[in-house]
Amino acid sequence: MRDVYLVGVGQTRYGKLSSTLREAAAEASLAALDRAGLEPTALDGAFLSNAFGLVERQGHLGPLVMTALGVPEVPCTSIEAACASGSSAFREAFVNVAGGFADTMLAVGVEKVSQLDTVTATSYFSYGSDYVYEGACGASFPGLYATMATAHMKKHGTTEEQLAAVAVKAHENAASNPKAHFQKKITLDDVMKSMVVASPLKLYDCCPFSDGAAAAILTTKEKAQALGAPLIRVAGSGRAGAIASLPDRPDLTTVPSTRVAADQALKMAKKTVADIDFFEVHDCFTIAEVVATEDLGLFKRGEGARAAADGATRVDGKRPVNPSGGLKAKGHPVGATGLGQINEVFDQLTGKAGGRQVANAKTALTHNVGATGGSCAVHMFERSN
Amino acid sequence: MRDVYLVGVGQTRYGKLSSTLREAAAEASLAALDRAGLEPTALDGAFLSNAFGLVERQGHLGPLVMTALGVPEVPCTSIEAACASGSSAFREAFVNVAGGFADTMLAVGVEKVSQLDTVTATSYFSYGSDYVYEGACGASFPGLYATMATAHMKKHGTTEEQLAAVAVKAHENAASNPKAHFQKKITLDDVMKSMVVASPLKLYDCCPFSDGAAAAILTTKEKAQALGAPLIRVAGSGRAGAIASLPDRPDLTTVPSTRVAADQALKMAKKTVADIDFFEVHDCFTIAEVVATEDLGLFKRGEGARAAADGATRVDGKRPVNPSGGLKAKGHPVGATGLGQINEVFDQLTGKAGGRQVANAKTALTHNVGATGGSCAVHMFERSN
Repeated sequence: MRDVYLVGVGQTRYGKLSSTLREAAAEASLAALDRAGLEPTALDGAFLSNAFGLVERQGHLGPLVMTALGVPEVPCTSIEAACASGSSAFREAFVNVAGGFADTMLAVGVEKVSQLDTVTATSYFSYGSDYVYEGACGASFPGLYATMATAHMKKHGTTEEQLAAVAVKAHENAASNPKAHFQKKITLDDVMKSMVVASPLKLYDCCPFSDGAAAAILTTKEKAQALGAPLIRVAGSGRAGAIASLPDRPDLTTVPSTRVAADQALKMAKKTVADIDFFEVHDCFTIAEVVATEDLGLFKRGEGARAAADGATRVDGKRPVNPSGGLKAKGHPVGATGLGQINEVFDQLTGKAGGRQVANAKTALTHNVGATGGSCAVHMFERSN
Repeated sequence: MRDVYLVGVGQTRYGKLSSTLREAAAEASLAALDRAGLEPTALDGAFLSNAFGLVERQGHLGPLVMTALGVPEVPCTSIEAACASGSSAFREAFVNVAGGFADTMLAVGVEKVSQLDTVTATSYFSYGSDYVYEGACGASFPGLYATMATAHMKKHGTTEEQLAAVAVKAHENAASNPKAHFQKKITLDDVMKSMVVASPLKLYDCCPFSDGAAAAILTTKEKAQALGAPLIRVAGSGRAGAIASLPDRPDLTTVPSTRVAADQALKMAKKTVADIDFFEVHDCFTIAEVVATEDLGLFKRGEGARAAADGATRVDGKRPVNPSGGLKAKGHPVGATGLGQINEVFDQLTGKAGGRQVANAKTALTHNVGATGGSCAVHMFERSN
């Protein structure tokens, strides 16, 4: 297995885009190639992550994006794992380079949902749940995560104010991120007074429906060195599944696939969670970030919400979490999200994160969940120069 | 890169299924595991190919199928490349084993479309085209392939009767295939007198809309030997793209991605096309088989249709093509099709193909195309014991 390096990233701004799926994906891909100092002809292959192409009645997006890049002969396979689509595409790009099947691979993710009304978007998103037992029964994702939040509050005494602190921190970080969907700081009071979406989750506990695209370029050590790029090694990769249907899970306060995928990634990297300088975790709802920080072992079981409220997850805290603003405030263009997290890793590890920079960041971990945890991918990155 | 072996295959009957997507995928997966002599717990990972999950409003199918198999922790990523989804899933399973990321992988494909009326199904299928420039303009897949047929007839003098011979051969083979959608022989006259779908293609020139699922299990040489399985090595794998939109292609009588993917697969296998005992190629329409046999080099450019009419592609011909009955008569459950082809390879190379058996078959090549060739995957198989 060869060492694999992250040599470029790119993304559109998240929010509302006027471009089509193929245009947004091409924009992010070209930005990533440009940042790596590569032409599209350098690509041996690509994966494209997208969940709701049906919005444009468009499947089979890969060749359209490769054609837009001017390299139609390059194979591009579509990848889907609900909200973990982007990191799943990244993983297979990594596997292809590490396994010697390709020297240079692109992973690009894209989503466009802003043309949908909220009811339609919520309905489409529920296709990522176990539809027969969840979506069709009226259990939308806010409802499912609200159930997890209720269970966490009952078991651990987590409060709505503690969850609100996660949102405040997210918006504070996103305010320094020019690619973020939201760039406005909010107060605890703003969160607490916002509309109830699915009790106990209020509007500001929830990530938005975002348009956006994000891309990453992976290559071999030899080629990374030749590019004179910062040497950011993909030190570990993990990918796991879990029972998709929340009603069938024995414990609603944990996501089992997170633990399995994180163990795989850290074992491959020969690291522990204590070695990681910052984390980009899947915070589609504030409760999701709390559960992720506990499952990843940043905090003891049941202490994640309090730690967040105490400032431990701030950029200058003991355990910086989601300096990008996270799905919560940077935004959540489903197919792009996992690759957007990796954009943040590149910015941070190259010292380009501006007002949200984590001081002296050399290592990072990304955690991306599909639905309520039916899929999870975790990656660990280390800068070596 | 490690050697990889095909140790089991399974599939549902193609046609009209009453089961759901997850049930059909689980049925094929369990059949493949059973044929390999493995339990689901042997799986390190899986890929699931599906194109039209929206029929059940279900994305994120992977964890549902792994849960049905009793191994929810096993990661299962969805793969889509229009009609080349199945072979694209197979390729990534191959890459994962060859690259040392997994010892034993499942690739399973599934499609359910029989509940749709023909207009809706044709509309959904067109999402696999370049929708803006093809589907939305009324160019359905029968129309696009009819355009290719017209170009081939004009350039090479190919006749409707020669194309009809491809259909007659396909139905003859499928009549010996208990898993086939159609199991009835037809005559040249039946084809010529059938309803025109998109001139010059008539009803019997077109594959059906099929439900179905198909699966394959890949593992290492060591584990294949321990199973006492027939040693069928995946000797080569190729994957390429092309401009998806037919109007933008310089030559409508060839599919450029076929040539690139086949070259890659044969080079990896250190074989030429003359070394292959039989071929399963992508014959969604009779013209598609003719073009594929020319692009793969079985026959000279422009001579594919005449060769088929002369019997060269029959099971007992010089170049057996689609002994399974092909997409044309075995059926075309989109996400499953590429893996269905690999089911036929296993049956043939283990001498279990009954009335459609290719005598002494030791080598095989599969060719699976997405849309009109925007994607293509080619695999080469060799039995070594």
